[in-house]
Amino acid sequence: MKIRTAILTIVFTSIGAASAVNAALPDPGMEIDPGRTALLITDPQNDFLSPHGVAWGVVGKSVTENNTVANIDSLFKAAKANGMPVFVSPHYYYPTDHGWHAEGALETLMHNIGMFNRKGALTTEGFEGSGADWLELYKPYINDGKTIVSSPHKLYGPETNDLVLQLRKRGINKIILGGMSANLCTESHMRELMEQGFEVAVVSDATAAAIVEEGDGYQAALVNFRFIANTVWTTEEAVRKINSSK
Amino acid sequence: MKIRTAILTIVFTSIGAASAVNAALPDPGMEIDPGRTALLITDPQNDFLSPHGVAWGVVGKSVTENNTVANIDSLFKAAKANGMPVFVSPHYYYPTDHGWHAEGALETLMHNIGMFNRKGALTTEGFEGSGADWLELYKPYINDGKTIVSSPHKLYGPETNDLVLQLRKRGINKIILGGMSANLCTESHMRELMEQGFEVAVVSDATAAAIVEEGDGYQAALVNFRFIANTVWTTEEAVRKINSSK
Amino acid sequence: MKIRTAILTIVFTSIGAASAVNAALPDPGMEIDPGRTALLITDPQNDFLSPHGVAWGVVGKSVTENNTVANIDSLFKAAKANGMPVFVSPHYYYPTDHGWHAEGALETLMHNIGMFNRKGALTTEGFEGSGADWLELYKPYINDGKTIVSSPHKLYGPETNDLVLQLRKRGINKIILGGMSANLCTESHMRELMEQGFEVAVVSDATAAAIVEEGDGYQAALVNFRFIANTVWTTEEAVRKINSSK
Amino acid sequence: MKIRTAILTIVFTSIGAASAVNAALPDPGMEIDPGRTALLITDPQNDFLSPHGVAWGVVGKSVTENNTVANIDSLFKAAKANGMPVFVSPHYYYPTDHGWHAEGALETLMHNIGMFNRKGALTTEGFEGSGADWLELYKPYINDGKTIVSSPHKLYGPETNDLVLQLRKRGINKIILGGMSANLCTESHMRELMEQGFEVAVVSDATAAAIVEEGDGYQAALVNFRFIANTVWTTEEAVRKINSSK
Repeated sequence: MKIRTAILTIVFTSIGAASAVNAALPDPGMEIDPGRTALLITDPQNDFLSPHGVAWGVVGKSVTENNTVANIDSLFKAAKANGMPVFVSPHYYYPTDHGWHAEGALETLMHNIGMFNRKGALTTEGFEGSGADWLELYKPYINDGKTIVSSPHKLYGPETNDLVLQLRKRGINKIILGGMSANLCTESHMRELMEQGFEVAVVSDATAAAIVEEGDGYQAALVNFRFIANTVWTTEEAVRKINSSK
Repeated sequence: MKIRTAILTIVFTSIGAASAVNAALPDPGMEIDPGRTALLITDPQNDFLSPHGVAWGVVGKSVTENNTVANIDSLFKAAKANGMPVFVSPHYYYPTDHGWHAEGALETLMHNIGMFNRKGALTTEGFEGSGADWLELYKPYINDGKTIVSSPHKLYGPETNDLVLQLRKRGINKIILGGMSANLCTESHMRELMEQGFEVAVVSDATAAAIVEEGDGYQAALVNFRFIANTVWTTEEAVRKINSSK
Repeated sequence: MKIRTAILTIVFTSIGAASAVNAALPDPGMEIDPGRTALLITDPQNDFLSPHGVAWGVVGKSVTENNTVANIDSLFKAAKANGMPVFVSPHYYYPTDHGWHAEGALETLMHNIGMFNRKGALTTEGFEGSGADWLELYKPYINDGKTIVSSPHKLYGPETNDLVLQLRKRGINKIILGGMSANLCTESHMRELMEQGFEVAVVSDATAAAIVEEGDGYQAALVNFRFIANTVWTTEEAVRKINSSK
Repeated sequence: MKIRTAILTIVFTSIGAASAVNAALPDPGMEIDPGRTALLITDPQNDFLSPHGVAWGVVGKSVTENNTVANIDSLFKAAKANGMPVFVSPHYYYPTDHGWHAEGALETLMHNIGMFNRKGALTTEGFEGSGADWLELYKPYINDGKTIVSSPHKLYGPETNDLVLQLRKRGINKIILGGMSANLCTESHMRELMEQGFEVAVVSDATAAAIVEEGDGYQAALVNFRFIANTVWTTEEAVRKINSSK
């Protein structure tokens, strides 16, 4: 196997020569194909993005540092101004979800703190302004009658909702991805959409994550975005590309 | 929303009191339920685990530091000694896979370096001892006629193979997870299996990952294992629990 | 291959000897395992089951002949009386669903006639008593605070909702299946649940289907239930088994 | 709800006026979009299509009446002549698959008669000319180095293999579908591909099914193809459309 190892070295070298910044990993990039590219925002909800949300204590610092709230706003604005389809994948828990027999760590935490709780799928009682509601700033975009809001995901990825079908039913095969939180729902959406054959450009500062004693969710997500996605953009790059995509 | 924020603080406090090590995140744990619990190893193949494998240049340091090869061996040995079902999810690429129209960063890299290449699904020509073959050390476990080898996954998770069906057809709902590489196939298996309702205990030193200029895949995976899985064990803990599970 | 053909003949003969009624196909059966078995009803909604529903013109004859409304009621009653978990998978369309770029035949028809329409996922305006609402008779069962109502499926199967996760999060691996309509949502639920490793007993007279010039959906479903499911029961058999399962 | 019922009647009437043959059900049709449309054949294997195959006793009559073998050949030939991508989804069982804890009726039968058996995923011993091998007639098409052969499906649909990813990685969103057997793998592929947002045209005489005492699988499939798919073509129509699609 010496020959193959030698090839590896050559590949790394030639990639290194082509791009001093990204020495080891290729950056395949993603061209915006109008009509086939959508903006997707995960969990643009109060519990993550409002200082009054139940998760602010662990995500507030990251949201503030990244300027996440304004950056997601910039993405919504650019997409709407350019007629790019916009999709939102929300996170809701209903009373029966609290009867699950087993849960992972963050599932347990979210249920303990009542995150994303609604009183039922067929009632909006108490929803307005709750932690599960949209951040007020984004309501004009989400409620314009054009934005496609999928059913709620129940863990972190779109395996449990209709997002993939909704994207395909509109002919979308490329995604510009932002939203909350970076290493949980955003990353699980990135991973699942790629398993379904979509191209994904993640917007690295239109997201944020919990930073706790056990680890920095945002740094973890940045590594995985770079390893897995087709490309990683800043909000500034994403907006510029969306504006010049028509 | 003041009341909810207050509850959050209380929850954190009480959890902190119960466990000084894991201050913020609950650790739900996982009981081994004999007959319903399986060992799952992702990508126990030369290209990741042999010094002759094409990825050794980027994963070798992490594999060596974690003692990954011996730890996976310990898991296989303990599972087999205790009659615990063992599943393996391999990673293969066939010639037609090189005609994909778009790929993420690591997909591009894996294809560039010929990782996990086979000459076809219906030929074993050149397979023996290749980078796609099992690490020699594990062959007695994998080839014992009992280990269930799923079809290959094609990106990182089991969405593209029959692993979930094979587990369910054997009545398995809890997984002890190890293998390669930590933030790619191992983590994507953890995420997808949890979306499918399995409980997952990840064995944090029975895996390893690429460490490159763009990021440390192993550190990223550790954060996400801790945030998402039902629990995280060392190999030593896992083996002890398997041995006392009958 | 003469030997294998001979074996086929022998198998058929021996099965034929054991069961004169089911000459060719084995009937694997399904034992109710309390705590692991659930009742699942698809689309128990006015548009299918009420004479005022938009689909009554094509399904009414089959619903009436099968006594479907009363049979589903008997299943609900038996499950609730015996503490068996009950799941419902509904069918809703929102305004944005009418912007899909392509649709199959029945999707087109359902959208043409406004079937299962709601004004939005986050409003219940006009829902009460509409074609998308539950049949009045079933509301006490569905609204008892225990029944788990999944997100809506958007085509026919549970691929687009959280049903599989909800079942797994409650430890369910066996399903008693009824609801509407036989060859569309009921059959697609049977097929997908089996692909996910569940055992499924279909209740053949707790369902019904459209009978149109192009074909009899109910007869088609009966054939496929028998070929694919673990077993097929009448409502009477199902109720008797549920009542003696504790 | 009287108004809605009235609308239903009008819709049916107007459709009836437009098409005397298809009185009730719309036929949305499917345009072949070169580069985005693929031919997909399920299970083109000896056990279904050869008089020596283990299932010939139950499917032989239907295969013969439909001229299925020649019709699939015509589809392969037309696709290859016009540069249309061709995908094949095979059906294999390995020794460990015989240890499943529970199975549906046809799964039980297939395992009883040794259908699609191989000695292992990593051996081709005994494969050549076996019931699991391709029908000899189709080998030039399948083995031309361009046809994409997915991993095996394990029940009936592509949920357990990489077919959807392979199609998406080639930019395919429309499928021309034929193969075996009509109401099992072919129909489950149609259903799952539509749940994934593909458009599907089923070729009704390039398939066939088991006809047994319990039911006629082919007639059941015809009804469901017509109800669910975007359109249904004969082989003659499909070939004409493929030939004029460039």
